[in-house]
Amino acid sequence: MTASKTNPGYFFEDFKVGQTLRHATPRTLTEGDRALYTALYPTRFALPSSDEFARASGLPRSPLEDLIGFHVAFGKTVPDISLNAVANLGYAECRFLKPLYPGDTLTTQTEIIGLKQNSNGKSGVVWVRSAATTADGAKALEWVRWVMVRKNDVDAPAPEPVVPELAKAVKAEDLAIPEGLDFTGYDFDLAGETHRWGDYEIGERIDHVDGSTIEEAEHMLATRLWQNTAKVHFNAQFREDGRRLIYGGHVISLARALSYNGLANAQTIVAINGGAHANPCFAGDTVYAWSEVLDKAETPAPGVGALRLRLVAVKNDATPAPLRGEDGKYAANVLLDLDVWALIPT
Amino acid sequence: MTASKTNPGYFFEDFKVGQTLRHATPRTLTEGDRALYTALYPTRFALPSSDEFARASGLPRSPLEDLIGFHVAFGKTVPDISLNAVANLGYAECRFLKPLYPGDTLTTQTEIIGLKQNSNGKSGVVWVRSAATTADGAKALEWVRWVMVRKNDVDAPAPEPVVPELAKAVKAEDLAIPEGLDFTGYDFDLAGETHRWGDYEIGERIDHVDGSTIEEAEHMLATRLWQNTAKVHFNAQFREDGRRLIYGGHVISLARALSYNGLANAQTIVAINGGAHANPCFAGDTVYAWSEVLDKAETPAPGVGALRLRLVAVKNDATPAPLRGEDGKYAANVLLDLDVWALIPT
Amino acid sequence: MTASKTNPGYFFEDFKVGQTLRHATPRTLTEGDRALYTALYPTRFALPSSDEFARASGLPRSPLEDLIGFHVAFGKTVPDISLNAVANLGYAECRFLKPLYPGDTLTTQTEIIGLKQNSNGKSGVVWVRSAATTADGAKALEWVRWVMVRKNDVDAPAPEPVVPELAKAVKAEDLAIPEGLDFTGYDFDLAGETHRWGDYEIGERIDHVDGSTIEEAEHMLATRLWQNTAKVHFNAQFREDGRRLIYGGHVISLARALSYNGLANAQTIVAINGGAHANPCFAGDTVYAWSEVLDKAETPAPGVGALRLRLVAVKNDATPAPLRGEDGKYAANVLLDLDVWALIPT
Repeated sequence: MTASKTNPGYFFEDFKVGQTLRHATPRTLTEGDRALYTALYPTRFALPSSDEFARASGLPRSPLEDLIGFHVAFGKTVPDISLNAVANLGYAECRFLKPLYPGDTLTTQTEIIGLKQNSNGKSGVVWVRSAATTADGAKALEWVRWVMVRKNDVDAPAPEPVVPELAKAVKAEDLAIPEGLDFTGYDFDLAGETHRWGDYEIGERIDHVDGSTIEEAEHMLATRLWQNTAKVHFNAQFREDGRRLIYGGHVISLARALSYNGLANAQTIVAINGGAHANPCFAGDTVYAWSEVLDKAETPAPGVGALRLRLVAVKNDATPAPLRGEDGKYAANVLLDLDVWALIPT
Repeated sequence: MTASKTNPGYFFEDFKVGQTLRHATPRTLTEGDRALYTALYPTRFALPSSDEFARASGLPRSPLEDLIGFHVAFGKTVPDISLNAVANLGYAECRFLKPLYPGDTLTTQTEIIGLKQNSNGKSGVVWVRSAATTADGAKALEWVRWVMVRKNDVDAPAPEPVVPELAKAVKAEDLAIPEGLDFTGYDFDLAGETHRWGDYEIGERIDHVDGSTIEEAEHMLATRLWQNTAKVHFNAQFREDGRRLIYGGHVISLARALSYNGLANAQTIVAINGGAHANPCFAGDTVYAWSEVLDKAETPAPGVGALRLRLVAVKNDATPAPLRGEDGKYAANVLLDLDVWALIPT
Repeated sequence: MTASKTNPGYFFEDFKVGQTLRHATPRTLTEGDRALYTALYPTRFALPSSDEFARASGLPRSPLEDLIGFHVAFGKTVPDISLNAVANLGYAECRFLKPLYPGDTLTTQTEIIGLKQNSNGKSGVVWVRSAATTADGAKALEWVRWVMVRKNDVDAPAPEPVVPELAKAVKAEDLAIPEGLDFTGYDFDLAGETHRWGDYEIGERIDHVDGSTIEEAEHMLATRLWQNTAKVHFNAQFREDGRRLIYGGHVISLARALSYNGLANAQTIVAINGGAHANPCFAGDTVYAWSEVLDKAETPAPGVGALRLRLVAVKNDATPAPLRGEDGKYAANVLLDLDVWALIPT
């Protein structure tokens, strides 16, 4: 039996700075993705739920949830970038450049922008900038992430280290506001809450109250839907403890959906400034979320403001507690520490 | 940490007779909802399955399963009406006023039509009349339900009791027959059974034979799809026994789908006259169903008759047994006792 | 309680050679089916994923996965043909005659082509040829299968035995190539692998590496989506051991999706020459797959070749091992032994 025709993924020594990879399996988004997203996550944001609400907000119809595009585009990079990854280390400079609608086809490509071999000589950090484009060639989203990748040949020489400088956050003026977006006629009843941009204060913390217990079938349905192939999510025989590790993006979408309760008007994510998957998540875990307002900004769109939010997901214990212990490490029940920009009516 | 921006729901003392609530998150229905419904429930009715069959029946295309509209519209009312509910007490006067198609957007509102504080002073019964409209403002469905809701402030004064008079059943002449519906060219082969309106007798009981065991992932996917947020369905930490209570509507749809076997020609539900969720349902339960013909009526549509059916769901033991014990209470394995009008070829 | 209006299915003595059955519940395929298929199986083939890729291959848009049509059409036959089946014995002469798209409605009918009572007098083998047509009357797929079916009345006389002669494989010249299919401008980057028709050798074996553990919720969602009603898949009370038997087609789709890794360019299945479900599959099983190249053929379509592939699924132990023991029986971990023709760029 030979595995010679199967994809071994890239190892650390296979990456070169400046190299560009076109990823496999372009994917046309559909109404089926929207329905499954709604079934998988407790989302109730009005903009990606109702064509009428979207039209009243200046869009041609209801856009898909922003994270659908992110998960699909991200999933495409896995077989090339992170099949041999030991850890996902971070995200930066992720911008959602236009709303996505059913019928849009995403194609993803990646440029290697940094490399640094670890001192142990067995692995190294790879920085990549990826972008997904629609059929007309327009960029729909872009992001940087960095991962620790194993070497296949430990004797392969270390590359010249290149560590890219990355923005700590996307600047407010660089946020891509969906063309035509206008919240001046916003219907707060239909959106579900009365709080507008001016009602949120920097430093304010919002407990999103609700919790959601994850089943194996749920996270696997989601992760396959994004065509993300990392075997640790699907194969109970892969880990010695027989558990499947839940795709970090599943926790992102779950936390985002839970954040509706208290941030119902934060209708659309336009940037991910950074993020960490602090601890692994497994089936049976009950996920809770809270947010902290990190920054506020005006935008040129009528009636539209931006909130920079820390979105935190914790598991099994929603008691308010510090995010990190005295040693600076994340508390054991913290799953996700994400930093996003979202748009909200002023 | 503050929860002050999150939705606490209405307590008994917050409701006033005559008050109107516009519910959050209008929802555009899609082909994705249809596919998920088919995956979640063993439905095989031809009308909501096939565009061709629907066209041959006088409709422009295949309508969505009636209960999709019901679940979506009902789910919208939960965050306002029943977040602090202790019990769902009943349904009445529910009419399905027109078929729903992918692309239709439902918006739901509710009028408070009755209030009666309980003698313990800690809770009370709230009667509400809700309606869902499509974008053109036309009513798609309406229903009355009553729930027992906790008081937040037990010292709040009791309101003047108002108990609405409700019909025991929707009158046959008030059933809304879908415009254009015509069963004169009905294809019984494609529908799956030969029994027509004239073949059913009042008092006849039909055992639907098949059983379906429910998994946690399934009922949560369904309940989220309807954007129903009641936390008891999703959070394994909410109840002391660690079990999640299954949304009563999940059992309704399951029983309706099982009823295909013996009522394959009862193509569309046009009214729910009443219903009780007799006992709680949990993952692992195996659901069976039987129906009893309660009444029959003619309709003005060509070839279309109406059957009034009691649809009963039981769990784990399908042995024929009385619905209620000698004490008048439902037997412990009865989940659902629903009273509906459905349309069937004459 | 009477079950007299419910469908008892056909017993062996109910079948006559030459008899034709029109099956219930025509089904319109939708984008929802595509999304659910992607969520249920780890498929990454570019043709059924991307409208753009499909257009570049000469098709009007992205066709649905071939097996969606197969499962839907097959499911229709279950209530009539195999409700009282003891065993699925085999498939033959299955051809996929045209790509299916969202909006297509499938109607299925079956002709009884063979009958042979077993020597025990309690059951017999029934051979059927089934076909699914779209609304315009064009055949979309056809297949032969044979099943062992119980007798209801063991005293019913044995029919004259008729055993049809079936082709061991569909001839290459009888494969239906989708109209317009053209792989001359094929983008191997977007497809995910570089191996073309010429790179595969007869006798070559490809280990598809990845494994996928099945949950109860997943196989039941799938099987209901195809409106396949065999109760053994859904009812935990049906078997004494409380386990639900997984629909064999679920294993077929899982194995096909896993085969992407090593056969990413085998974009579309055009025939199933034969197949055996060697052992039962249950929730908790981890499924792996491997393929063997059985034959190769040219086709008249530009840039399009055909591979005849044995697709094998095994459970829980992916160690290379003989398919059959010395007694000629399948090894205990073999689930599926399928023989297909697929199209691939030359």
